Amino acid sequence: MKLGVCYYPEHWPKARWVQDAQQMREIGIEYVRVGEFSWSRLEPAPGELDWSWLDESLAVLHQHGLKVVLGTPTPTPPKWLVDQHPDMLAKDENGNVRGFGSRRHYTFASTSYRTEVDRIVTLMAQRYGEHPAVYAWQTDNEYGCHDTILSYADADLIAFRIWLKEKYGSISELNTAWGNVFWSMEYRSFDEIELPNLTVTEANPIHRLDFQRCCSDQVVAYNKLQTEILRKFSPDRDLIHNYMGFFTAFDHYKVGNDLDIASWDTYPLGFLDQEDIYRDDEKQRYMRTGHPDFGAFHHDLYRACGKGRLWIMEQQPGPVNWAPHNPAPANGAVRLWTWEAFSHGAEVVSYFRWRQAPFAQEQMHAGLLRTDGEYAEAAFEAKQVSSDVEQLAHQLDLSVDDLMALPSKGQVALVFDYDSCWTFDIQPQSNAYRYMSWFYRCYEAIRKLGLSIDIVSPQSEFEGYEMLVLPAQANIDQEMLLRLQAFEGRILFGPRSGSKTSDYRIPDNLAPGKVQALVDVVVERVDALPKHTQLNVYGSWGRGAIQNWHEQLKAEPKERPQEVLLKTDNGTPVLVKQLNSYYLGSCVDDGLLEQIFSRLAQSSGLTTNFLPEGIRVRDRGPIRFAFNYGNETREITFSGYEKLLGSNALGQCDLSIWRATS
Amino acid sequence: MKLGVCYYPEHWPKARWVQDAQQMREIGIEYVRVGEFSWSRLEPAPGELDWSWLDESLAVLHQHGLKVVLGTPTPTPPKWLVDQHPDMLAKDENGNVRGFGSRRHYTFASTSYRTEVDRIVTLMAQRYGEHPAVYAWQTDNEYGCHDTILSYADADLIAFRIWLKEKYGSISELNTAWGNVFWSMEYRSFDEIELPNLTVTEANPIHRLDFQRCCSDQVVAYNKLQTEILRKFSPDRDLIHNYMGFFTAFDHYKVGNDLDIASWDTYPLGFLDQEDIYRDDEKQRYMRTGHPDFGAFHHDLYRACGKGRLWIMEQQPGPVNWAPHNPAPANGAVRLWTWEAFSHGAEVVSYFRWRQAPFAQEQMHAGLLRTDGEYAEAAFEAKQVSSDVEQLAHQLDLSVDDLMALPSKGQVALVFDYDSCWTFDIQPQSNAYRYMSWFYRCYEAIRKLGLSIDIVSPQSEFEGYEMLVLPAQANIDQEMLLRLQAFEGRILFGPRSGSKTSDYRIPDNLAPGKVQALVDVVVERVDALPKHTQLNVYGSWGRGAIQNWHEQLKAEPKERPQEVLLKTDNGTPVLVKQLNSYYLGSCVDDGLLEQIFSRLAQSSGLTTNFLPEGIRVRDRGPIRFAFNYGNETREITFSGYEKLLGSNALGQCDLSIWRATS
Amino acid sequence: MKLGVCYYPEHWPKARWVQDAQQMREIGIEYVRVGEFSWSRLEPAPGELDWSWLDESLAVLHQHGLKVVLGTPTPTPPKWLVDQHPDMLAKDENGNVRGFGSRRHYTFASTSYRTEVDRIVTLMAQRYGEHPAVYAWQTDNEYGCHDTILSYADADLIAFRIWLKEKYGSISELNTAWGNVFWSMEYRSFDEIELPNLTVTEANPIHRLDFQRCCSDQVVAYNKLQTEILRKFSPDRDLIHNYMGFFTAFDHYKVGNDLDIASWDTYPLGFLDQEDIYRDDEKQRYMRTGHPDFGAFHHDLYRACGKGRLWIMEQQPGPVNWAPHNPAPANGAVRLWTWEAFSHGAEVVSYFRWRQAPFAQEQMHAGLLRTDGEYAEAAFEAKQVSSDVEQLAHQLDLSVDDLMALPSKGQVALVFDYDSCWTFDIQPQSNAYRYMSWFYRCYEAIRKLGLSIDIVSPQSEFEGYEMLVLPAQANIDQEMLLRLQAFEGRILFGPRSGSKTSDYRIPDNLAPGKVQALVDVVVERVDALPKHTQLNVYGSWGRGAIQNWHEQLKAEPKERPQEVLLKTDNGTPVLVKQLNSYYLGSCVDDGLLEQIFSRLAQSSGLTTNFLPEGIRVRDRGPIRFAFNYGNETREITFSGYEKLLGSNALGQCDLSIWRATS
Repeated sequence: MKLGVCYYPEHWPKARWVQDAQQMREIGIEYVRVGEFSWSRLEPAPGELDWSWLDESLAVLHQHGLKVVLGTPTPTPPKWLVDQHPDMLAKDENGNVRGFGSRRHYTFASTSYRTEVDRIVTLMAQRYGEHPAVYAWQTDNEYGCHDTILSYADADLIAFRIWLKEKYGSISELNTAWGNVFWSMEYRSFDEIELPNLTVTEANPIHRLDFQRCCSDQVVAYNKLQTEILRKFSPDRDLIHNYMGFFTAFDHYKVGNDLDIASWDTYPLGFLDQEDIYRDDEKQRYMRTGHPDFGAFHHDLYRACGKGRLWIMEQQPGPVNWAPHNPAPANGAVRLWTWEAFSHGAEVVSYFRWRQAPFAQEQMHAGLLRTDGEYAEAAFEAKQVSSDVEQLAHQLDLSVDDLMALPSKGQVALVFDYDSCWTFDIQPQSNAYRYMSWFYRCYEAIRKLGLSIDIVSPQSEFEGYEMLVLPAQANIDQEMLLRLQAFEGRILFGPRSGSKTSDYRIPDNLAPGKVQALVDVVVERVDALPKHTQLNVYGSWGRGAIQNWHEQLKAEPKERPQEVLLKTDNGTPVLVKQLNSYYLGSCVDDGLLEQIFSRLAQSSGLTTNFLPEGIRVRDRGPIRFAFNYGNETREITFSGYEKLLGSNALGQCDLSIWRATS
Repeated sequence: MKLGVCYYPEHWPKARWVQDAQQMREIGIEYVRVGEFSWSRLEPAPGELDWSWLDESLAVLHQHGLKVVLGTPTPTPPKWLVDQHPDMLAKDENGNVRGFGSRRHYTFASTSYRTEVDRIVTLMAQRYGEHPAVYAWQTDNEYGCHDTILSYADADLIAFRIWLKEKYGSISELNTAWGNVFWSMEYRSFDEIELPNLTVTEANPIHRLDFQRCCSDQVVAYNKLQTEILRKFSPDRDLIHNYMGFFTAFDHYKVGNDLDIASWDTYPLGFLDQEDIYRDDEKQRYMRTGHPDFGAFHHDLYRACGKGRLWIMEQQPGPVNWAPHNPAPANGAVRLWTWEAFSHGAEVVSYFRWRQAPFAQEQMHAGLLRTDGEYAEAAFEAKQVSSDVEQLAHQLDLSVDDLMALPSKGQVALVFDYDSCWTFDIQPQSNAYRYMSWFYRCYEAIRKLGLSIDIVSPQSEFEGYEMLVLPAQANIDQEMLLRLQAFEGRILFGPRSGSKTSDYRIPDNLAPGKVQALVDVVVERVDALPKHTQLNVYGSWGRGAIQNWHEQLKAEPKERPQEVLLKTDNGTPVLVKQLNSYYLGSCVDDGLLEQIFSRLAQSSGLTTNFLPEGIRVRDRGPIRFAFNYGNETREITFSGYEKLLGSNALGQCDLSIWRATS
Repeated sequence: MKLGVCYYPEHWPKARWVQDAQQMREIGIEYVRVGEFSWSRLEPAPGELDWSWLDESLAVLHQHGLKVVLGTPTPTPPKWLVDQHPDMLAKDENGNVRGFGSRRHYTFASTSYRTEVDRIVTLMAQRYGEHPAVYAWQTDNEYGCHDTILSYADADLIAFRIWLKEKYGSISELNTAWGNVFWSMEYRSFDEIELPNLTVTEANPIHRLDFQRCCSDQVVAYNKLQTEILRKFSPDRDLIHNYMGFFTAFDHYKVGNDLDIASWDTYPLGFLDQEDIYRDDEKQRYMRTGHPDFGAFHHDLYRACGKGRLWIMEQQPGPVNWAPHNPAPANGAVRLWTWEAFSHGAEVVSYFRWRQAPFAQEQMHAGLLRTDGEYAEAAFEAKQVSSDVEQLAHQLDLSVDDLMALPSKGQVALVFDYDSCWTFDIQPQSNAYRYMSWFYRCYEAIRKLGLSIDIVSPQSEFEGYEMLVLPAQANIDQEMLLRLQAFEGRILFGPRSGSKTSDYRIPDNLAPGKVQALVDVVVERVDALPKHTQLNVYGSWGRGAIQNWHEQLKAEPKERPQEVLLKTDNGTPVLVKQLNSYYLGSCVDDGLLEQIFSRLAQSSGLTTNFLPEGIRVRDRGPIRFAFNYGNETREITFSGYEKLLGSNALGQCDLSIWRATS
């Protein structure tokens, strides 16, 4: 439960650096990220390295007791380097080169760029790997930002053909797996295969899915290139990357396997305004706090990607510059967001950025300092957090490190799967369906019941939970089925679960494929509903409406007893229970979804509450955190808990912290 | 009144083929289309032909008494062929190559591709031209699908220059005809002319129109290349192409001249959801049946393109995969659509596809069989149709062939003109006006009166009708005028009729040009209304509102008597009658449009009914068919008719069949 | 107060020319613009000049006493010339060449095209420079039409690098000024700099702003190339260019410096329908008159660009062809628009075009004559204007030249700045904010108070006004500050004033930068509101709502007294007064905006009226003009004025003219 900040000493005169460090300490900051965009200052001309300014900056920070997260400068190669290797540039799906002039001007698959990355990271790691100020490393910055995972340059085509050859071995294997007999798409060699852009109509979905997987693997390899160098020259330092919100274009679990900590960059207001996932009424209601589940969802997701270790590398401190509209946060929102992160297990919350830059692209992006060097609002809220933490530690008679060691495990597990997301985004079958939206609404419904959630990877062990939810697991293979069959709690499968093989095919036994081993249902037909169309649904578990996605199920209990908990007006099953497994064949409205999860949680022995609008709760072991994202003041108490911090009446952005008494 | 199906034996193990054929017979299927996407299987490598699988498949089908429609495989040339002839690929209007990876990756104008087409079609026709299983041929597949008529590649430029030279002879003729003095667009030779894309602002409309005409003629020539080969090696077989819904980018009458039968591919739900022509309330009301006039309109249009002979080559059997949303049809909808087609003269209705493919682009597109090989819902409806036909034949004491010979001619003729559609799409003058929308609403208004409609080409003879409607015939030349003057029934000209010459000019005598020989009106000014703007209109023929298009008319009767049947609030004429001719100068609301056609039909001696919402009727000689596309059950009877099939109470998707008793 | 027309003799047979000239005289036309699109007729082949037709046409016009404005034919170079110099073509921001086939197919920066321009303009000026028919010259036509200011071709890159080198001298100066340390965007030489398109995400805003400035300067240089030739060979003739509505992509003040008269092309209905600046209710209410401030705003703007001399070169005479919808003007609208222009100081109002062309792109664009050569409605309205002018002159006992000499200066000055417009369009910070929209709403609010407005350049002297408004002056430098401090009237600064330096940076003292020398406020934070979000505001100057843009102000009076006239619900200042200066930190709703300007005008000693909806007023010295753009008839009188023309009851499109009696 510590604070950090992102800092660009190269933007400011050296004369200011000491004051910066003093001010950081003054508001309780311990960690400082530097360096990730500074290549043109580290190497102003080919081979001419200038470490002096960074040496000096690290010295100042170290002298003030600040711990540095050093970023490798690879997201912004200098112009001279791009001119040396024009083949390193990405191409967009129309075949246009994405050139120099902003950032992330490279494709992950470029071998010429990887050689340069190897060189600069090695030089940097050799110089600073054992530097006493350096606490951790950040690899590159925000992989994929500005839609940079999929690229259609020559380097990408070469990499794709190699990747396919490694995966399939022979071209006939590929033709069979892809079903290329369809539309005479058969190839005679891997060299005939093109990238799936600029086709006359949509390319084969497995062609697209394999390309997405290949591009994701390029990110993994690119990151691993860096981590291997850093492990060698900078042992014992944590390696971190900073992920982004609602970003799914590569498999973050795989990248996370080569790192020590997952961090992410949280901009609650920018994402609220920008994302289609939010309805207009939500955009208005939460315009100054962000959506109540935005932070929580990502904290839980990235804690999984970090194998339990989570940081916030960039926390919004005021208005940003990049959303369609950029309002100011409510008073207290920065503190609220920080505590929300701590309640989900974040070790450090680092603000972006220290001082607002008066020039270039992000000049309207707030910092802890204004451009004139005075404290902005967020600085005071950060300082309040520091004092909150001290107070909490004192009340619990614990050190801050003890506080940080509180368990962050949740009560309910949701399986989030990047491959499923790609699968359904490639062929949504209805514009009203998106994997991410449906997953997020499931997450929200469970969290509105006061439950603490873990998001888990499909490869993880599921033991230790009473309740496991797979909102839309496209492909369930035999190995995963065994893990699911061994699970002793309740399992709910959402619509589209098991509906595809890993080769992007409909399973031989129809959807839900392997799920049929647990629940005897068959998806006879998919009825992908237009927007604003509803079908009534009712049954012992509630009443409501089907929206966006509807499967016509046939429930055929074989040996095991089966119960239809919800059905449509004409009697076809919607939610079917068999032993401890449940299959839900339709997306349903938010109210019914909350009812379903409430029943499921109760069946699993979990206690639930229907929380008031805007209120959310998160537990870390015996400690309970309560937050108010809404506009109305709410009286919030918990029986069996005593209050440690905050008041019972929670106004907008207020929070309270409680301890279980029994 | 026979059934067919589209079948891809190459997708399935040979071991299944016999069972497939048996099941087809079981549900009453007689015709099977095969082969159109199979080039990579027929010629896996350059010059290496493999006919064995097709030989075997045809043998199985023939043994089971099934008649084959053999498709030429030219919509999907294999990758090796594309690599041999990269110049065969189309370019989009931004100049990007439209590459391999899906289908239709060629431009019609490519001479190198035409050489390959000549080769493969010749080989195929030689082998199967006299095969006893082969009943008919389908040339290529869905010309123009995925927006492939207009292409901007080098091959297209070469073809365009040749086409222009042939049309105009000299460049000065072209300059004059095009009005190239405007904006100094004059050329000194045909080699200076470019394609009309990537201009700074819009190109000359006649430049665009001639390019559209040229591209249309390329389709005609491409198709004729195939038909000439097929006529030579496969005499006595019917030649067919399968057209698409709401697709106007080439002149289907001209392509139809070289074929024996016109067929089309009908997807009522996909088109309802996809097309702007339908309002949101229609999209909701008819989401599971399709719009009541969708099938009828196209049946009547393509029967004209087929010179009286019509097939449905692909009939939607369940949810499709390509519309923005893809709901399931209502129970009975597949049967309803099939009978609607028969009532408009379709000889065969063939379903797409036999068995849902579990792989590749269309894996979410339903078939008569599910992916697991079991019957899907549509199979039972198809079987029901087979039994309906038998019942009907029995009741009438006719053979099915006699049934099929019933006349399909309608009572009212509407002139549909591809050239007019292009003309007005190029310069709509108001975003609220589209040729197709206005035409469709005219068709709907007449059909809602219970009338049976023929759509006719502008080159056709108009004799034999009491009532002729030209909703928006852009160019009326002297020859056409003579035919119109010779017509003895009532003629109604809609707005924009006669407003352009064939050179895309305003006629010297202003709009409606040659129509003035029949109705003495002059379009003094066009007042193209913004969306949601209305002008009141009233008169002896009704009351309502002008929408989207308004012409300020001057009505100046010369010798002949004239009557103003509708006028605006300030007295300017809107609908003018002179002898048996009528000129309507504005688009009006649906209710008034129905009123106008009702009056016109009555004046023509036709009996009309204002049918209830969702109900439609079609006659074939003495036999009357009634259909319910709506959600409500309606009591439907006809005096002077006796019922042969169905009940008086028509629920959703029900139909009844009647015979005139007098 | 004279009339003109745009004429294309090359479109019509010579036999018609005399009749054309006679008809022009008949309706009171004195000025005729010819030639600007005729290059292919003047030089049908390279070097083969054909002046004969133009000689003859000028002779006919001259014989009939018509004065010619001769257009240089450079907006439409012929195809052979483009083929000689393919490098002259512009490229769009995707890198696609913008080819031949319409008009404006060149980039201003092309040196090869400038050589050709030099040649043809010299030839033309030599031939017609002293021709007695030639009264004035128009350079080219509508610079920038069809988005042709920014181009991304090689010629543009070369010009940009030269421009930057001239501006910055050394690359390190540029790096510092641009803040290129950000994201390692530093360059080592000017040759490394690219154009700001096709970057991965947005380019540096100063990179974009400097490119816009450079492109603007290319227009200035291109125009100057022509004016220098014309000055040389055609002394004493007025030089004119015709600008466009709502077009800001180059600095019109700078182009105007090399010309004698500013003219513009006014299409009130086309722009109403096309522009986002207008709300849907305005689009409906004014669909046949245009918005009441559309003409006025541009007249005042371009009078400033013309250093006091204003023409209307193209006035809409009926429906146009290029807007999304193209309705007909109300009866009287053409006369209304013409008089509105005269009331703002226009010397000549020239209609576009003489006769509607029956061919090519603009065939649906009305003229004074229809395509058949008969008078269209507008001809009669133009004739009415001629007679109005005579009547007015007679009543005032003045010549028309005396009438034209009436002062056109307004009471209130608004500073319009192209550089500010570019600055805020590059980084709007909220999609709900646009410089032009906000400026236009300020203009409207003041004009609805019955005040006559001057728009002035930021470089102009501000003396002579009681009230000066800077709606959003991005950059205020020391020199400008001195002029503002010297100003003796009231000054109101709108939000974002002073918020950027000329290098696109936030000032060291924060926004409003130099304005702080007049009003002691600091913009602590920008709260860029989402659409449909409002904040309440109230105070001694009114009550209303903040919309679209909100600055959190800190008002810290130092020595000078300060008054907070408006504040938000939580007490932060919104409108602050200090001595005679006012800072308004938010965009407010239209009603409150009108209140604020009413108070400000009263404080400045100006008399204001809240005019009825649709009514507008403009004064020229003692003469007052009143106009009705609304649908309702209004009784309009002015105390202290006597009526010269028109009635008190003003119906739609009516106008009245008054003279001050005291």
